[in-house]
Amino acid sequence: MSMQVPAGDLLQKINSPSDLKQFSEDDLEQISQQLRQYIIDVVSVNGGHFGASLGVVELTVALHYVLNTPYDQLVWDVGHQAYGHKILTGRRDNFHTNRMYKGLSGFPKRTESEYDTFGVGHSSTSISAALGMAVASHYKGEKDRQHVAVIGDGAMGSGMAFEALNHAGIANSNLLVILNDNNMSIDPNVGALKEYFADITTSKPYNSFRADIGYVLSKISAIGPDALKYAKKLEKSIKGTLLKQSNFFEALKFRYFGPIDGHDVKHLAKVLRDLRDIPGPKLLHCVTVKGKGYALAEKDQTKWHAPGLFDKITGEIKKTYYDKPQPPKYQDVFGHTIIELAEQNPKIMGITPAMPSGCSLNLMMKAMPDRAFDVGIAEQHAVTFSAGLATQGLVPFCNIYSSFMQRAFDQVVHDVAIQKLNVVMCLDRAGFAGVDGPTHHGAYDLAYMRCIPNLVVSAPMNEEELRNLMYTAQLENAGPFVIRYPRGNGVMVDWQRPMKALTVGKGRKISDGEELAILSIGAIGNEVVKATAELNNEGLYPAHYDLRFVKPLDEAMLHEVFTKYSKVITVEDGCLEGGAGSAVLEFMADHKYNAEVTRLGIPDAVIEHGEQPELWAECGFDAASIIRTVKNMGITQNRHIIAS
Amino acid sequence: MSMQVPAGDLLQKINSPSDLKQFSEDDLEQISQQLRQYIIDVVSVNGGHFGASLGVVELTVALHYVLNTPYDQLVWDVGHQAYGHKILTGRRDNFHTNRMYKGLSGFPKRTESEYDTFGVGHSSTSISAALGMAVASHYKGEKDRQHVAVIGDGAMGSGMAFEALNHAGIANSNLLVILNDNNMSIDPNVGALKEYFADITTSKPYNSFRADIGYVLSKISAIGPDALKYAKKLEKSIKGTLLKQSNFFEALKFRYFGPIDGHDVKHLAKVLRDLRDIPGPKLLHCVTVKGKGYALAEKDQTKWHAPGLFDKITGEIKKTYYDKPQPPKYQDVFGHTIIELAEQNPKIMGITPAMPSGCSLNLMMKAMPDRAFDVGIAEQHAVTFSAGLATQGLVPFCNIYSSFMQRAFDQVVHDVAIQKLNVVMCLDRAGFAGVDGPTHHGAYDLAYMRCIPNLVVSAPMNEEELRNLMYTAQLENAGPFVIRYPRGNGVMVDWQRPMKALTVGKGRKISDGEELAILSIGAIGNEVVKATAELNNEGLYPAHYDLRFVKPLDEAMLHEVFTKYSKVITVEDGCLEGGAGSAVLEFMADHKYNAEVTRLGIPDAVIEHGEQPELWAECGFDAASIIRTVKNMGITQNRHIIAS
Repeated sequence: MSMQVPAGDLLQKINSPSDLKQFSEDDLEQISQQLRQYIIDVVSVNGGHFGASLGVVELTVALHYVLNTPYDQLVWDVGHQAYGHKILTGRRDNFHTNRMYKGLSGFPKRTESEYDTFGVGHSSTSISAALGMAVASHYKGEKDRQHVAVIGDGAMGSGMAFEALNHAGIANSNLLVILNDNNMSIDPNVGALKEYFADITTSKPYNSFRADIGYVLSKISAIGPDALKYAKKLEKSIKGTLLKQSNFFEALKFRYFGPIDGHDVKHLAKVLRDLRDIPGPKLLHCVTVKGKGYALAEKDQTKWHAPGLFDKITGEIKKTYYDKPQPPKYQDVFGHTIIELAEQNPKIMGITPAMPSGCSLNLMMKAMPDRAFDVGIAEQHAVTFSAGLATQGLVPFCNIYSSFMQRAFDQVVHDVAIQKLNVVMCLDRAGFAGVDGPTHHGAYDLAYMRCIPNLVVSAPMNEEELRNLMYTAQLENAGPFVIRYPRGNGVMVDWQRPMKALTVGKGRKISDGEELAILSIGAIGNEVVKATAELNNEGLYPAHYDLRFVKPLDEAMLHEVFTKYSKVITVEDGCLEGGAGSAVLEFMADHKYNAEVTRLGIPDAVIEHGEQPELWAECGFDAASIIRTVKNMGITQNRHIIAS
Repeated sequence: MSMQVPAGDLLQKINSPSDLKQFSEDDLEQISQQLRQYIIDVVSVNGGHFGASLGVVELTVALHYVLNTPYDQLVWDVGHQAYGHKILTGRRDNFHTNRMYKGLSGFPKRTESEYDTFGVGHSSTSISAALGMAVASHYKGEKDRQHVAVIGDGAMGSGMAFEALNHAGIANSNLLVILNDNNMSIDPNVGALKEYFADITTSKPYNSFRADIGYVLSKISAIGPDALKYAKKLEKSIKGTLLKQSNFFEALKFRYFGPIDGHDVKHLAKVLRDLRDIPGPKLLHCVTVKGKGYALAEKDQTKWHAPGLFDKITGEIKKTYYDKPQPPKYQDVFGHTIIELAEQNPKIMGITPAMPSGCSLNLMMKAMPDRAFDVGIAEQHAVTFSAGLATQGLVPFCNIYSSFMQRAFDQVVHDVAIQKLNVVMCLDRAGFAGVDGPTHHGAYDLAYMRCIPNLVVSAPMNEEELRNLMYTAQLENAGPFVIRYPRGNGVMVDWQRPMKALTVGKGRKISDGEELAILSIGAIGNEVVKATAELNNEGLYPAHYDLRFVKPLDEAMLHEVFTKYSKVITVEDGCLEGGAGSAVLEFMADHKYNAEVTRLGIPDAVIEHGEQPELWAECGFDAASIIRTVKNMGITQNRHIIAS
């Protein structure tokens, strides 16, 4: 069949893995090339993750060629590398909607395809999930069913992956873990394990070494009785001790295979076929290159992790040009400000779990390498390591995306809050993460942080506020301090103003008003500003207050609000259950105020991916929705203004 | 000096580690014995953790003898093994107040002693914390300062410990990790790593093996040119490949020492002294026996983990005898009920992260070994493994203590809730954990679970309700389901009644009333029952409703409440911020009700250890406090009753 298909068209014939299986093994390389090109074509004009998917093209083709998916179950860790998987499993023609509002998800998702066995997004869940599937199969007696987790070397350094290996090693299951070793997270991978992987990939392959030992020992034995004696001694010693201990994965009772070249698709297919028949937990170590096949992406892997739109021929990354200076990203405000603060305060340290370029701590890592740490994909460790630093009088700024901080919730309670340590927790990507979707939305942080004692929980409305909160958080005895801010750009061009201390638990009035007050927290307050400006044009004057702190609340300000206003709207880009509006209701009940309160925020539902403004509108708290809410609550037109 | 001290009195001379250092090395064994006896004396009459501290007596003595504590920093993982440490660091005469209300904490605690460098309670934080301290010392140029984390083999299997090792292996620090390998968690340790430790402790010590290789190779080389050739080949191969990969900890760039006998105090002191001079991350593998020196505790280590009061001579564990049958522990209701359900429903599986005897899943593990899993101290993995099982149509009951579930918060959001998988999450030890104190209080679960979409969040008021909730949670399409219940005994003797399905989101009225309604959630509702009974005697008739579900709320019932009653009290044994009372306020605001609402629950503070009733009283929600609150809110005496 394959011989009749003109070059370039093989991919068009594949609408499911069963189509793929019709091709001969000799076609796999060509199919891989076409798949790679297709990813380049679409991502260059639509955006999305890039390098990771290019790196696993051959692995993706080989897996679907050899495995009987979806009966055999394949779990992609993180999942931003699963574009090839999506394209081969019936989503080729829809792939241009990837990460668009109402379009395909940028990650595997169970409701999208039966080939997506497990929804992913956060790192290091794949082994646990695949093991659950494998144990279920074992229980059901499905002996022929294969279960495969594909996990990167960065994700393998996360505690959760280790927990799963530790269980899988002794579980009755038919699990294959494929280590996709490209030596990268989004940024270069760090940690001892990464160095270990480098050791074993540069040294002699493990399996051939084991064969060697046998060979050399037999040769020595043959020399004579003396040599035989020592050879036996050595053999006993090696078998009794060293081989038992050898190899990280074998220590965890996995059979280890590799390392092998993850870009030799025919060899991959052969190895996967062989492994299918080996029972028990096994690990295949594949060495791949992130960005493989696109020279620029191979060269600068961090930049090309998710480069945005680009010219696929020249590699020029498309930038939007503006006539005048634009507000910076919040992450860059953090990145520059921590250096500014650290230059003045020698106690300040910076910590990120594998997100230096994502949170801009890379700036400090470059400027002050002994004071800024990338600890790997290890949120739990990042927080408790920070707590350890804080016990020594240092002031760690631990920067973790809001949704990733969910991984370290216990550490925030147990190690930071109970001990009242001055750890500054900066939650980037709070609120809607945008096109990364529900796994990445920072929707719950106000609720899950607000319930913890001893914490200060704050959210800046703009860049200047972020700087001032960071300044305040590093002052003597500031205690545990949370600052949450959104993905994307701020609102100020002239943001690099001198910093000043804010009073903890003090909000601010943005505008006076009549009858109705709007209380907002964080950057979504800028939608309120837009809304009140429009309402003012219509002669409607709601007041606007910025809470600034959800914990402690500004009680004086709230007394003013509930004394002066009978109608109140709260606005937050976080979940309504237990969030900032809920805190305001608690204050109101505790102080026996009566007011009509409408809470705007993220409803009790999983909100899919989309651009932030699309999602704000969907959830009813963009400027237009706020205007609508104000009008629905029945604010009276101000006659003075109308008269004037 | 030591010669003049009569036997038995050495310990009395030690009020701090500097006193300990005055003794000769020959006295250490005797001091160890006296320390062990002192622990037995006090714990047998006061209760507390037992086996763990006995197992590290020699290690504790050796560490404080060799290290310059508190300048040198010692972090005990979990900390229930730190009784000896407390006794040697100035708390001997106070030790009888251990775990009592207002007494010493059962765990190291920073505010209690400068020797307690880091507060602990949950497992596997020690390496992260000690690394933070070590990195701080490196930054400050304190080259002579030692940093030691002591961690059990069970805790070493937790992901967080692995994350810390992975960072420590490449960090500039002077960190010593001591692996206290007793082959136990509370229950026997499980997992591949445990088997690996067994392998390396039963095989030839690693270091002597390395020396051996050199020796034998030199012998072979001496035989002749042929032998030399092969010996060289072998040497190159071994050095190039196998040694690089050998040993789990060396793979993580730690220098590995041991295994050594953790009960040979003089040898321990020598080894610790030697290690002090070796820079960089290093691990000492100590083999100890949990319960060492108390024969019964050595024999049945799970039973003697925390046996309660006992006769130290006979070993008889003191039981309280009752005239009539007593209500069971909630954990046993869970343990028996899951078997009953699993016998009927083949889809049900049981999962616990290292708490089989604590949550009584050990019953199912014995009765149905292929359907119940102890996955080790691995809450993250436990939840996602359960999610994996659920994707295959199984119904996993994942039982995790409330405060330990904080470790798996992200997995609940990311793997269970977003995917709407039917994982039943049973949170034991919800509310106050009692004498284990703030690290173990299940104070936040209602708040941190309530904010997650797609979850059902429930709490039974008694054993029958627990059984019915468990029954309901395993029905077709029940979705993600949380059931939280307290530590300790229930309230029903006749609890093993037939189960029935409850309507999700439907509460129940316990008693009608006038003017004021009390809404409770979970077992603390029994304090409300007591309170209303007493109030009735005084002619006061508050109504009492059991919410049963915090999510979804019983809206019909709440409409009734807010229509009929102008005063409402909410009662929960969870944090007030974002908890059940807060959910009621949200309902009230959303439906524009006005009522005076007083919320009773855990205030926004770290609540120390104590018996549950002591803490309920302290926080103002025991029956007496509820009565006081009702009266303060001004309920009118019912004249009809008074007239009768």
